[in-house]
Amino acid sequence: MTEHSAVGKSVIRLDALEKVTGKARYCIDMKLPGMLYGKVLRSPYAHARITSIDTSKAENMPGVKAVITGKDVPEKRFGAAVFDQHMLARSVVRYIGDPVAAVAADTLDNAEKALELIEVEYEEMPGIFDIDEAWQTDPPAVVHTDLPKYELGKFPPPRLVPERPNVCNYRTLRHGDVEKGFKEADLIIENRFTTTRINHCAFEIHVCIAQAESDGGLTIWAGRQSIFLAKQYLCNAFDLPPSKVRIIASYYIGGGFGSKVTLYTEPIAAMLALKTGKPVRLAFTREEMFHSGGSRVPFVIYIKDGVKKDGTLVAREMRMLLGMGGYSGSGPLITRNTIYGLASTYKVPNVKMDSYAVYTNEPIVTSFRGFGTSQPVWAIESQMDIIAEKLGMDAAELRRKNLLKEGDINATGEIVHSIGVGECLDKVAEFIEWGKKPKEGNHWKRGKGVSLGNKYSMAPTTAVAIVKVQEDGTIEVRESADEMGQGCITVMGQIAAEEFKVSMDKIKVVWGDTAITPYLSRGSTSQRSTFNVGNAVRLACQDAKRQLFEIASEKLGVSPEDMDTGDGKIYVKANPSKAINITELFTAERGLLPGEFGNYVEKTGEVIGRGIWVTRAAPSDPDTAQIPADAAQKGERLVGFYGYAASAVEVLVNTETGEVKIEKFGAASDVGFPLNTKMCEQQVEGAAGMGVGSALWEGVLLDEGRVLNPNFRDYKMTTALNMPKMENFKSFLISAPHKDGPYGAKGTGETQITSTAPAIASAIYNAVGARIKDLPITREKILKALKEKRKG
Amino acid sequence: MTEHSAVGKSVIRLDALEKVTGKARYCIDMKLPGMLYGKVLRSPYAHARITSIDTSKAENMPGVKAVITGKDVPEKRFGAAVFDQHMLARSVVRYIGDPVAAVAADTLDNAEKALELIEVEYEEMPGIFDIDEAWQTDPPAVVHTDLPKYELGKFPPPRLVPERPNVCNYRTLRHGDVEKGFKEADLIIENRFTTTRINHCAFEIHVCIAQAESDGGLTIWAGRQSIFLAKQYLCNAFDLPPSKVRIIASYYIGGGFGSKVTLYTEPIAAMLALKTGKPVRLAFTREEMFHSGGSRVPFVIYIKDGVKKDGTLVAREMRMLLGMGGYSGSGPLITRNTIYGLASTYKVPNVKMDSYAVYTNEPIVTSFRGFGTSQPVWAIESQMDIIAEKLGMDAAELRRKNLLKEGDINATGEIVHSIGVGECLDKVAEFIEWGKKPKEGNHWKRGKGVSLGNKYSMAPTTAVAIVKVQEDGTIEVRESADEMGQGCITVMGQIAAEEFKVSMDKIKVVWGDTAITPYLSRGSTSQRSTFNVGNAVRLACQDAKRQLFEIASEKLGVSPEDMDTGDGKIYVKANPSKAINITELFTAERGLLPGEFGNYVEKTGEVIGRGIWVTRAAPSDPDTAQIPADAAQKGERLVGFYGYAASAVEVLVNTETGEVKIEKFGAASDVGFPLNTKMCEQQVEGAAGMGVGSALWEGVLLDEGRVLNPNFRDYKMTTALNMPKMENFKSFLISAPHKDGPYGAKGTGETQITSTAPAIASAIYNAVGARIKDLPITREKILKALKEKRKG
Repeated sequence: MTEHSAVGKSVIRLDALEKVTGKARYCIDMKLPGMLYGKVLRSPYAHARITSIDTSKAENMPGVKAVITGKDVPEKRFGAAVFDQHMLARSVVRYIGDPVAAVAADTLDNAEKALELIEVEYEEMPGIFDIDEAWQTDPPAVVHTDLPKYELGKFPPPRLVPERPNVCNYRTLRHGDVEKGFKEADLIIENRFTTTRINHCAFEIHVCIAQAESDGGLTIWAGRQSIFLAKQYLCNAFDLPPSKVRIIASYYIGGGFGSKVTLYTEPIAAMLALKTGKPVRLAFTREEMFHSGGSRVPFVIYIKDGVKKDGTLVAREMRMLLGMGGYSGSGPLITRNTIYGLASTYKVPNVKMDSYAVYTNEPIVTSFRGFGTSQPVWAIESQMDIIAEKLGMDAAELRRKNLLKEGDINATGEIVHSIGVGECLDKVAEFIEWGKKPKEGNHWKRGKGVSLGNKYSMAPTTAVAIVKVQEDGTIEVRESADEMGQGCITVMGQIAAEEFKVSMDKIKVVWGDTAITPYLSRGSTSQRSTFNVGNAVRLACQDAKRQLFEIASEKLGVSPEDMDTGDGKIYVKANPSKAINITELFTAERGLLPGEFGNYVEKTGEVIGRGIWVTRAAPSDPDTAQIPADAAQKGERLVGFYGYAASAVEVLVNTETGEVKIEKFGAASDVGFPLNTKMCEQQVEGAAGMGVGSALWEGVLLDEGRVLNPNFRDYKMTTALNMPKMENFKSFLISAPHKDGPYGAKGTGETQITSTAPAIASAIYNAVGARIKDLPITREKILKALKEKRKG
Repeated sequence: MTEHSAVGKSVIRLDALEKVTGKARYCIDMKLPGMLYGKVLRSPYAHARITSIDTSKAENMPGVKAVITGKDVPEKRFGAAVFDQHMLARSVVRYIGDPVAAVAADTLDNAEKALELIEVEYEEMPGIFDIDEAWQTDPPAVVHTDLPKYELGKFPPPRLVPERPNVCNYRTLRHGDVEKGFKEADLIIENRFTTTRINHCAFEIHVCIAQAESDGGLTIWAGRQSIFLAKQYLCNAFDLPPSKVRIIASYYIGGGFGSKVTLYTEPIAAMLALKTGKPVRLAFTREEMFHSGGSRVPFVIYIKDGVKKDGTLVAREMRMLLGMGGYSGSGPLITRNTIYGLASTYKVPNVKMDSYAVYTNEPIVTSFRGFGTSQPVWAIESQMDIIAEKLGMDAAELRRKNLLKEGDINATGEIVHSIGVGECLDKVAEFIEWGKKPKEGNHWKRGKGVSLGNKYSMAPTTAVAIVKVQEDGTIEVRESADEMGQGCITVMGQIAAEEFKVSMDKIKVVWGDTAITPYLSRGSTSQRSTFNVGNAVRLACQDAKRQLFEIASEKLGVSPEDMDTGDGKIYVKANPSKAINITELFTAERGLLPGEFGNYVEKTGEVIGRGIWVTRAAPSDPDTAQIPADAAQKGERLVGFYGYAASAVEVLVNTETGEVKIEKFGAASDVGFPLNTKMCEQQVEGAAGMGVGSALWEGVLLDEGRVLNPNFRDYKMTTALNMPKMENFKSFLISAPHKDGPYGAKGTGETQITSTAPAIASAIYNAVGARIKDLPITREKILKALKEKRKG
């Protein structure tokens, strides 16, 4: 193994000092001179037609600078994948919270008061609140009757299903012959699993400041993930060329978890800024975050597995219905991405999957940590447990038997590479003493469960990084991955420190401004930053070093390829004592002041290195989602890489109250190579904790589309108190190095969450014999199941 | 001649729309949240010792956040060339206006009030206010008794003259044998010429906002020329590494003319920001601009010329005394730069020059349009007139006879290249019908005068430019030359438009931020931007084009070198109809949304080109200022290039009031090649107008170091009303292309001013026979001279 100086270590975060001293700045802290405050009037109806809007009173209110409604916004709709949304509703509202009008005023109070003066009349329409019903060919209500033709480039439109009017995207995977597979099976297990809508609960709410520029362009300060994507969305929404939109997120983001990819505040704030000519700030309330800021997509999953007596999987068929709510956001992409969770981990020779994005009149959804994988994995892993029980096999053993191995071909036709899932399983199983029967209790019953998980990282990514070496030998890295707390700027800094073999105090990272930091086709989503941007940073460092070596060549008397760098010096590889300080390469021969007489040669004030990294996606068949064999042979993949995880838990279940306590938790993630050990562990811990919430209590409660718990009193998040004691929680970092990853690293952050809920469900079943197939597994559901069990 | 599409034309300025609509932003418009206001308490004495300072009352005043005095500032002194100044005086004050204390308060009113509460006691010392006296070996007062050792790198310190205690720099030029020359001469003419202190009168006063960063660094928003130089000065002043200081001037600058190179507000604002932890704004009043914001260096010039009967110059000896005021600022550099004005234009075989920077107790000086050249040229050109008269020769003919020619070797040993001065002279002489006797008047006498001028551009410069091609085919140029109204961003944009053969609306220029825009060893000083930064932009465009051609290579099926670009297309040179739109190079093969199935290949979101241009200065002998012959043969020069100019004026002089009217004015500048014709003409016009002021009325009036006219009522600037009618003013652009300039361009902006005052002086002499050798030639001086003439 290579000796590393800066990566593979628990380096202190670059943002640590600013964060602990309270100096860290977030978008929510920003104010611009002359700034106005925006507020949005929202629909109180889940489905209704707007019959009239009277804004005159609001317009005449002192302090109000602009009032806009659907008639002011572009005719063209926008969206992350399907263009189904006007910035403000033009005739029909489709969920409770749908934006109807917006105001900009001198103070937030005045903006709020002005909303009350806007008079809107609605004609209520029947709504639809059930995903299965909405999916039907003759649903009781149709949410969108005029879906636009998909317009982005030559890209194939989301596949509509003409006979199912609420479906806005339909994706398939076909591998082998699933009917033949079921015929070969000794056992067929069929189940329906569901997951509910959960909220990201990022501590910083959605907020932006929009400013109209004198060239007709827009500058948006936003607390966002994926600045270049935001730029693209806004260019589409406002018909502006890319050079006229600038997105700035060059501060810290108070948590993303996928919630800050889609646009919520930005188009409306931009409309108000264009109308007033002033900067306009638009911030959501916590309540708005719950109904209008996106949540995780609820799934209904029908799964049917065929298996041999010895446990060998022979066929798997899944139908997934994804509840979009009133508009699709990034939902249609999730339909596609369900494929990845299904295709990895297990070798299944015959696979058939159909995945549908379905509109309802419920609040909108968006991307969420584990994007399109947590839900199918929840169904698959629960099935594995049920199958093991039916076959009388150990649940861990059944999994081991069916694992994909390095070099295998998975259901999408990819050749499997870097799969550390078996080692993950071994570690966590050992930690909870899997196989050893838990102690019996009284009304607190003990149980154990294991589960595997996986999370792809989306493949097509172009990442550019710039590295600037300054006169004092400091290295500045410019990159466009977002710092949402996950620590990506620290990792980018570590890579630069590693490449230059300097300490971290020599490193500065600049991020988050489409005008300043270089192109990144996607931001910090799909756990891709370390892999893609990390590679770009590494290449940029190498480019900068090459230039430094060239400058040093004359002084050291050797050619650039015979040099290396470390500790701020450039030295001759064969004779490291022959060295020159990097700072001297910037120094004029007779001083710093140019123009003075003397043998003065000015070199340069800074060296700028550039790195471009492209992760390609292999071409795939739109009907089967498979890539051609020759592409696979060339090493091409549909995804960038797969991360793998395992969770093993021991729980206590109170048979009288339904309460579940996590007694012991082993969490393992295959990260390829941990560039920052501590931060990787924290990702594993954080994702495990979020998984516990999704398993046991988190859920946005709805009553005909109305959110009943849009606050942190009624919506329960996991806290440290809900997790096992420190000695009973252990995170394991597994390294199955990826050939293309920087130092072998893949990415992490999302992987662990996918394995958590099924492990907990299995442990609950193991403890009390109640198999709950609907997340979250609340006390009520457990008690109800126990009651039914006692009855049955 | 090459066909150009964007350069060589009067393209509309990129800042035109913002400026005429009032949307243009300047540093003076900036406000930051929580910003404090700084004010400076200044010495009322020209020379005194501070015996006590009591700040307690000011500190206790409500609203006051900090009060600092000399004891709070670094022990180490700072300066542009000689480290002779503390940020606030520590014990001795050296001019009326010397900063003694500073406050930061919540409002400007409170800051001003707080100044009144600071109690300072002084012990007055004798001052010195005469440059000749100050230069003596035993002057009546010594301004600095403890000049520090010069510390910047290995750079030779300014040459002190131990027996002359007020001299802080001494520079020489030696060429041939001047004594031998005088022996060969038929006529020797000796005179003393002087120039006074004039003010830049930039409409935007000195202003900055300083902010202390949590990493211990400083960010300074400043209305400045030369951001990287400001960074270097502040790093020196605060002992900070370059990576910890950021200078932002990414807005328009309300005029510079040299006044915004040295630091005035920045170190004090930075001290206050460090002390308060808040952003601190420090803006000068107009009065402060006059005594503490720098003015043009007053010169005393002793000149002795030896000439043959036929007019051939054989020897020239000059001694120049430069009045620095209390601190030297950039004055010591001017001592050196007097060489350039002397070495160009005329072929003089024997030259001796001695130039001294001399402290007095007068207000401070700094760089000014024509840096170190206007003053020697004033003396030299006046001498040429006097010589012509003595020899009975035509003044233009005498000049033509002695001109340097392409390929000649000048006094510094450089081989002359790109010298268009003869053509300049021809044009302006023709315009005023030189040689044709002016009409006689009554008490309004007519006279004509011609003069030549020149201005070097300092050689050692490293300029880096970045060019970003965006998805919509727009070209963004990032460069660090300053936009002070001279139009440099437009010129950089034109170069990019030329290289890409696109219209100007496809161009965006980003400038003025040391953290964002690339390195430039000097900013927009020494008329160097077009030459140096222009070349860097051109190289960056070529780098970006190369990358685009590489991407296009596959699609067009030819190799990159067989392509060219124009109108947003890349085409095959041999078959221009075979072309592809640049925008298509950024588009994925099957659409913009990555990750979707299909034959998706993502290219890139932007292409970044990089250009580095270095203008070397040849090594020169510190004792003679000459470069070695072998360096000259290799084409090396001491300067980047020389611009040349000629002025020809016809004046009316009122013999009763002394009033002078400029009746006709021909102004010609050799610009190498005018990249923007209109803007070059405007530079010629502006410099001519400024020259008229310096010739006739501009002067900072002093009474023992106290400025008597620190406002625009008492200090007269030239306005349009002082210039001839439009049809009687003509600017000529002469093109002697420079082999290294972009498209042959040199630079302009400074050149014309050097030739103006001597032409006006000659015309006045021609009109009324009064030869004034002391600028400005005020009515009083003319009347006095006429009176003496009548007497004598």
